[in-house]
Amino acid sequence: MKVCASLPKMKLPGQEEFEVSSACENVPTGELDSGPGSGPSPDGPSDTDRGELGVPKDPLLFIQLNELLGWPQALEWRETGRWVLFEEKLEVGAGRWSVPHVPTLALPSLQKLRSLLAEGLVLLDCPAQSFLELVEQVTRVESLSPELRGQLQALLLQRPQHLIQPTGTRPCQGSAHPREASHSEEAPLKEQRQNPLRRKLPPGAEAGIVLAGELGFLAQPLGAFVRLRDPVVLGPLTEVPLPSRFFCLLLGPSTLGKGYHEMGRAVAILLSDPQFQWSVRRASNLQDLLAALDAFLEEVTVLPPGRWDPTARIAPPKCLPSQHKRLLSQRREVQGSSARHGALAEDRYGHWPQAPSPELQQTGRKASWYPSDFLDALHPQCFSAVLYIYLATVTNAITFGGLLGEATNGAQGVLESFLGTAVAGAAFCLMAGQPLTILSSTGPVLVFERLLFSFSRDYSLDYLPFRLWVGIWVATFCLALVATEASVLVRYFTRFTEEGFCALISLIFIYDAVGKMLSLTSAYPIQSPGYPAYGCFCQYPDLGGNESQWTRTEPKDRDDISSMDLGLVNASLLPPPECARRGGQPRGPSCHTVPDIAFFSLLLFLTSFLLATALKHVKTSRFFPSVVRKVLGDFSSVLAMLLGCGLDSFLGLATPKLTVPSEFKPTLPGRGWLVSPFGANPWWLSVAAALPALLLSILIFMDQQITAVILNRAEYKLRKGAGFHLDLFCVAMLMLLTSVLGLPWYVSATVISLAHMDSLRRESRACALGEPRSFLGIREQRLTGLVVFILTGTSIFLAPVLKFIPMPVLYGIFLYMGVAAMSSIQFTKRVQLLLMPAKHQPDLLLLRHVPLSRVHLFTAIQLACLGLLWIIKSTPAAIIFPLMLLGLVGVRKALERVFSPQELLWLDELMPEKERSIPEKGLEPEYSLSGDSEDSELMYQPRAPEINISVN
Amino acid sequence: MKVCASLPKMKLPGQEEFEVSSACENVPTGELDSGPGSGPSPDGPSDTDRGELGVPKDPLLFIQLNELLGWPQALEWRETGRWVLFEEKLEVGAGRWSVPHVPTLALPSLQKLRSLLAEGLVLLDCPAQSFLELVEQVTRVESLSPELRGQLQALLLQRPQHLIQPTGTRPCQGSAHPREASHSEEAPLKEQRQNPLRRKLPPGAEAGIVLAGELGFLAQPLGAFVRLRDPVVLGPLTEVPLPSRFFCLLLGPSTLGKGYHEMGRAVAILLSDPQFQWSVRRASNLQDLLAALDAFLEEVTVLPPGRWDPTARIAPPKCLPSQHKRLLSQRREVQGSSARHGALAEDRYGHWPQAPSPELQQTGRKASWYPSDFLDALHPQCFSAVLYIYLATVTNAITFGGLLGEATNGAQGVLESFLGTAVAGAAFCLMAGQPLTILSSTGPVLVFERLLFSFSRDYSLDYLPFRLWVGIWVATFCLALVATEASVLVRYFTRFTEEGFCALISLIFIYDAVGKMLSLTSAYPIQSPGYPAYGCFCQYPDLGGNESQWTRTEPKDRDDISSMDLGLVNASLLPPPECARRGGQPRGPSCHTVPDIAFFSLLLFLTSFLLATALKHVKTSRFFPSVVRKVLGDFSSVLAMLLGCGLDSFLGLATPKLTVPSEFKPTLPGRGWLVSPFGANPWWLSVAAALPALLLSILIFMDQQITAVILNRAEYKLRKGAGFHLDLFCVAMLMLLTSVLGLPWYVSATVISLAHMDSLRRESRACALGEPRSFLGIREQRLTGLVVFILTGTSIFLAPVLKFIPMPVLYGIFLYMGVAAMSSIQFTKRVQLLLMPAKHQPDLLLLRHVPLSRVHLFTAIQLACLGLLWIIKSTPAAIIFPLMLLGLVGVRKALERVFSPQELLWLDELMPEKERSIPEKGLEPEYSLSGDSEDSELMYQPRAPEINISVN
Repeated sequence: MKVCASLPKMKLPGQEEFEVSSACENVPTGELDSGPGSGPSPDGPSDTDRGELGVPKDPLLFIQLNELLGWPQALEWRETGRWVLFEEKLEVGAGRWSVPHVPTLALPSLQKLRSLLAEGLVLLDCPAQSFLELVEQVTRVESLSPELRGQLQALLLQRPQHLIQPTGTRPCQGSAHPREASHSEEAPLKEQRQNPLRRKLPPGAEAGIVLAGELGFLAQPLGAFVRLRDPVVLGPLTEVPLPSRFFCLLLGPSTLGKGYHEMGRAVAILLSDPQFQWSVRRASNLQDLLAALDAFLEEVTVLPPGRWDPTARIAPPKCLPSQHKRLLSQRREVQGSSARHGALAEDRYGHWPQAPSPELQQTGRKASWYPSDFLDALHPQCFSAVLYIYLATVTNAITFGGLLGEATNGAQGVLESFLGTAVAGAAFCLMAGQPLTILSSTGPVLVFERLLFSFSRDYSLDYLPFRLWVGIWVATFCLALVATEASVLVRYFTRFTEEGFCALISLIFIYDAVGKMLSLTSAYPIQSPGYPAYGCFCQYPDLGGNESQWTRTEPKDRDDISSMDLGLVNASLLPPPECARRGGQPRGPSCHTVPDIAFFSLLLFLTSFLLATALKHVKTSRFFPSVVRKVLGDFSSVLAMLLGCGLDSFLGLATPKLTVPSEFKPTLPGRGWLVSPFGANPWWLSVAAALPALLLSILIFMDQQITAVILNRAEYKLRKGAGFHLDLFCVAMLMLLTSVLGLPWYVSATVISLAHMDSLRRESRACALGEPRSFLGIREQRLTGLVVFILTGTSIFLAPVLKFIPMPVLYGIFLYMGVAAMSSIQFTKRVQLLLMPAKHQPDLLLLRHVPLSRVHLFTAIQLACLGLLWIIKSTPAAIIFPLMLLGLVGVRKALERVFSPQELLWLDELMPEKERSIPEKGLEPEYSLSGDSEDSELMYQPRAPEINISVN
Repeated sequence: MKVCASLPKMKLPGQEEFEVSSACENVPTGELDSGPGSGPSPDGPSDTDRGELGVPKDPLLFIQLNELLGWPQALEWRETGRWVLFEEKLEVGAGRWSVPHVPTLALPSLQKLRSLLAEGLVLLDCPAQSFLELVEQVTRVESLSPELRGQLQALLLQRPQHLIQPTGTRPCQGSAHPREASHSEEAPLKEQRQNPLRRKLPPGAEAGIVLAGELGFLAQPLGAFVRLRDPVVLGPLTEVPLPSRFFCLLLGPSTLGKGYHEMGRAVAILLSDPQFQWSVRRASNLQDLLAALDAFLEEVTVLPPGRWDPTARIAPPKCLPSQHKRLLSQRREVQGSSARHGALAEDRYGHWPQAPSPELQQTGRKASWYPSDFLDALHPQCFSAVLYIYLATVTNAITFGGLLGEATNGAQGVLESFLGTAVAGAAFCLMAGQPLTILSSTGPVLVFERLLFSFSRDYSLDYLPFRLWVGIWVATFCLALVATEASVLVRYFTRFTEEGFCALISLIFIYDAVGKMLSLTSAYPIQSPGYPAYGCFCQYPDLGGNESQWTRTEPKDRDDISSMDLGLVNASLLPPPECARRGGQPRGPSCHTVPDIAFFSLLLFLTSFLLATALKHVKTSRFFPSVVRKVLGDFSSVLAMLLGCGLDSFLGLATPKLTVPSEFKPTLPGRGWLVSPFGANPWWLSVAAALPALLLSILIFMDQQITAVILNRAEYKLRKGAGFHLDLFCVAMLMLLTSVLGLPWYVSATVISLAHMDSLRRESRACALGEPRSFLGIREQRLTGLVVFILTGTSIFLAPVLKFIPMPVLYGIFLYMGVAAMSSIQFTKRVQLLLMPAKHQPDLLLLRHVPLSRVHLFTAIQLACLGLLWIIKSTPAAIIFPLMLLGLVGVRKALERVFSPQELLWLDELMPEKERSIPEKGLEPEYSLSGDSEDSELMYQPRAPEINISVN
């Protein structure tokens, strides 16, 4: 089943292709391909000019409307509109191009255009090789007198005005080499050559130019449509020196008013339509041209005049309707409704790629990719990826290390966290099946370790040896799971299970962060006015020998009370540390409390939480250039942490700080790097450890495999295949290693791994204006991960700096992680629906297909499960919570008796058996009714991968 | 010029009209009028059924599509779509109606419909009086065999399925009385009668019913269009028991697939179009019907298929295109482009009503309205308005009173604020020309008073007598301004001046709030670890007589140190108040500081600011029912204040609180209610006071008149006229009164007054689904204001409760007010543009018409002016800042040399002279080019009144 692997391709570093493909299921630039019906081309520079079936691909068309203005006084041509995918209009007053928008037309202008073309001049495959020749051909019309013809020719040759707008965007890579027309005698103007738009158009792009306007001296309208046999650069006519393929002239007397402008727009919009363009490139006579126009008219969407202002601008949709579907819908129209069911079922699954891929069965065979896993990393993008992921990993190591150190009373700590992350991460990057995965401490494992520690404390066990045995057993169980190919069971973890898993862990995060923060206020109590007394004085032992020391400091003034001698009792108001240094003893209720710490900690906590949240949102705001936005958004938690530390050190208050060992030795005093196998524990505990190990294995299995499924989803277009079993094998081995060394346990972390993939995205440039960038794939390699972990390893020597991090800041980041994970799941959105009146609910697809009461019921069941899990977690039986998570699979199975498969399809997804049954049964009547609208509706709610499915 | 006053109309209380008119410049429900071209009808119940010229108005049409489903097995009719203004689609799976959306159609279905109608049966003014009769008439077609006819009739008479959706919305007032058809023999079903939709349709509404579907036994398509002579309730056919006027049947063999559904939608969309409806109601034959369809086609907007998915749902626009404009554009089309300039100029000014209205010249003549000013208040809406405005006024009185008390060192205070607000407000409500105005302390006057106080303190003046003379002079100057009718000068206060005014005051608010908050941290210093010592002990005078007192409390344990006897010195660690009570003296550096106060105050400050901001946003969120959202949003500052107080009293810390006198006497000790005219000041100060009074007069004039202009804008549709001069006269008189009594000074407060008007809006109910509510006018009366101020007066006795309000909470609210005012002005939006890359800038109209560099230049000039004002404010010459504000008018005048009138029109507005010059000059070429799109674009950016133009 190695579909992807059948296209191995070596790429030289820096070699870039102008690929056409898309992250949307719909293919925006698919239309640049060989014509309607052809799929997106496989990537590769050699294929640039050929479509899937070897048919030459049609080049991209840039269309420009030059309008004749100023009749009768001061005639001038001015470019007033341009099109690639969307329309840009010249804002005359502001001297700028409008925001790209969906073009709209009045129907009559299309009809007028049709009749003008039908009567006018249509030259297909015109052999003109210069603009002059072309003008001569076009004006060779009977109705024009020679004098008028001359006037018209002079007018047409007049140089048009273009608005060349400097832009700050980067050029399209590999472009700016327009195919030079063979016989173009007109060298492009400097203005044209320097147009930044030129760099945004792909090589081989052609131009279509429309000239329109009112010209009073013409007695009757003049229409001409020309397709040039060989595209020619028509001098200064276009704003970019592209060879023109199409030329259209629409001039006439003033009777039509703005009609020519509108007709000109109509031609441009027609030409920018992929199907019309395909047809007109292949048209052999006027009839073909008119047929293409009629086909366009057949497909247009009509907005009623009373309900829609025709001049409103519609923003470009996120994904364009795919041309494939357009063809399909035409075919459907012809074949009747019988074909619809099948097509819809196909679309249905195309949109729901969450069902585990066939790659689950496939593992190994990764060796053939190994060399390319390093060579593919030789791209500048990988440097920034390394920096980004390194910072994320270090932040994670600090946060989890700090929390783990606190939870296990120092059995784990920041040093162990750094060391373990570096060792395990690097090893995984070298060995694993999916080298994009970043191994890290994750929430579930942290929660389990905390429970394990409190369990061992309750029964007075020697923690690390006990933990070693748990690790050994987990490794054994995981190997058994690998041997039995149990990874296929992951198919039973539907969204219901994933969301339960994620929600529980997120809640624990939120609860812990707030709880730890509040426990700080009891450690540093607030002194309310009702508090009996506050004060601290320093008392010295009443020894005669020491008195000489105090005569020196005897105050001149009784008001100099900071070192006042209180009569016979040697006492002062020196601060406790100073007092102790001088041999005194601090006495008083306030000696061991520092005021202001509680509220200041709360402020730090809130500041870091709110700042991290706010910075995350900067990424999608309108402010600042993209680079700044990206940096602020990506490093939100690092920046929030830095600001918190800065604020803390600026005020210099004695807030609780992160405990960091001062030298390179385990955090727990008195232990070596190797954990002794038994310690103070009885021998049978090594057997009994199998029980908690079973629970941890479940957790590790779920955490690891859910992450793996998400990372290997089809929408990421990974080519080198996954390695579910190999990865689990690696995790098991590393489990053993970290247990022996007493380091934290690691599994694949969803968020960081996805961030890693995201920083390695290969994208086509957004060349056509208003077009979203299309996603080409991921730079799959092992090097970035490896470098990240080597850097993390060397960062151990940074450890002394870390002791300046206040704990409240870490709690704030922890809260942020919990809230972010919680708000990313669909479950949260459904809980919000409970609070919304029906009429204010967003137009979710889910709500279009499932009755609201059923949606609420599903949410209520999830809430009940979550409540039950929470109750179990709060009892002494807390440690069995992984088993309960697994129990969610059972609950989900039972839901099949409550909900219909249709409902589950929308609310969750289907389990393997049901999934097979659906296509046989056919779809329920609802699909035949509302069928044709649903795929399009998905366009506005593209199914984004649920990034934060697991907290890490 | 009393245009508005020429239509006096008395209304009985409680009498409600179903008025059709709109807050948009475009008229959404204007189409319910007598037909295209008629304007909105004047309000008044007698006009309900007649248009402007006495022509009977067309009733509202509710259109329903019943589709025939289940061929061939189980035929049933089901309602799958409905239309009033927008389309609602049945979500079959979810069992709910979709969100109302702009209907879209495929062009071919309109064309197929046209040919089907052309060949089919068209009955206009059909006399059928029951559904049975109608069915018989419709099926009397030659092509049907008697057997088929019977089958078809039975099928048509089959009861359709409706989805009756319970809604929580209130009914349309005065509706639920559908005109009963004279001969309707079919009583409506219970289900129909109980349909909540019924209450949302106005009285007299009619139904149009479309039946469509595929029916295999028909050999050829069957199309019938019927207009009933008398509308008849067609039994259970419609979901609401409305009399049907139109009936359309579209059935046929299966060859067309979904074609019948689409054709049915096409008929429904046609019928929902106001112009088509108007035509078809008046059509006398098939040709008229087809002509109406063709006219519709002429006007449709077309979206190209490759760029827009035809099944995407478009949300209803905020304002519908006006039918008047549709006619105009048609006329334009015919008359050519020559008429365009004039029409555009007209639209242009329609959209920019900020230019002062002609009412500036008109004042007085308010007496005729006086009785209705009280009678109009007898409406339940006024009760909630009173509650809302009362709370806002009290919050304002507390905030400003507290700040004024602090700024003037007690010369003003909360008690004066309450008393003054009540007296001045009530007097103004009784006398003023514009009784909707709420008098209140405003930011500018507060700032001035603070400066005046510090000035008088610097020169050791007796403040209140000095202030009395300032007040006397201000009153004199204001009277002079009234006498010279200087209010017309307000025309020179363009947006540039208003924004400068508002921005400066907002900045002072923000600066003060933050500054006062920070000054709290120096009053309650944070004790950092470096601080020499902290502690406080209680020392008693070494009197033998007192020692007996201390033997009692001698501790048994030396560690019971809270009342420890320190050897020979009688000392304890009792808290200072306790110590003082027992005759001791607190000694030590910490005796006068309370820990934690600084950070807790900061927390309170941030909490109240963030909470007020967040609650304000709840109003526009999707959560909670509208009532809850409205309460939370409207009372955001009250709620934030309450929460802050609750938090403070829960922890019981000694935060600084609002100073409130315990009895009813002036806050300043030792003064009576009347201010003595000279006090300790020299006599000539009464003359010298004229100088600051001049400055204050400028401020009062600007503040009062800018507010008055905003309140009297045309978009509020006030009918009783303004009273610019009368209002200024009242303000002057009240100035005198409050100065004599030593109360704060008052002018009209923009925000509260606008909130007052807003709470008295008369609106048509949003009857048609998806239609925005249209604004009918304001309940103009004096009573609500009067009651508010009487309540404020009685609230003086609430004063003892106010001493629980912590000052940081007030500062937080103060900051919120400053930030809210700052963010409401266009200037802020333009400053934000400076930070946005051009391609991410929002599609503002401004940016479409003015080059970006010019926009930035204008913003930069405003910033420079603001900086200069700020510098002046920070120097000892601060008190002259009102003069500098006036200087903004001069700067604005000078800007005419830098910017073209076109640019100023977009960036600001024109000054009186320039304004007159524009229509003569005609519009610049840019209008003729991009002209026709701009009015429509305004539709998406309706020019909302700038509510927070001045901080109050």
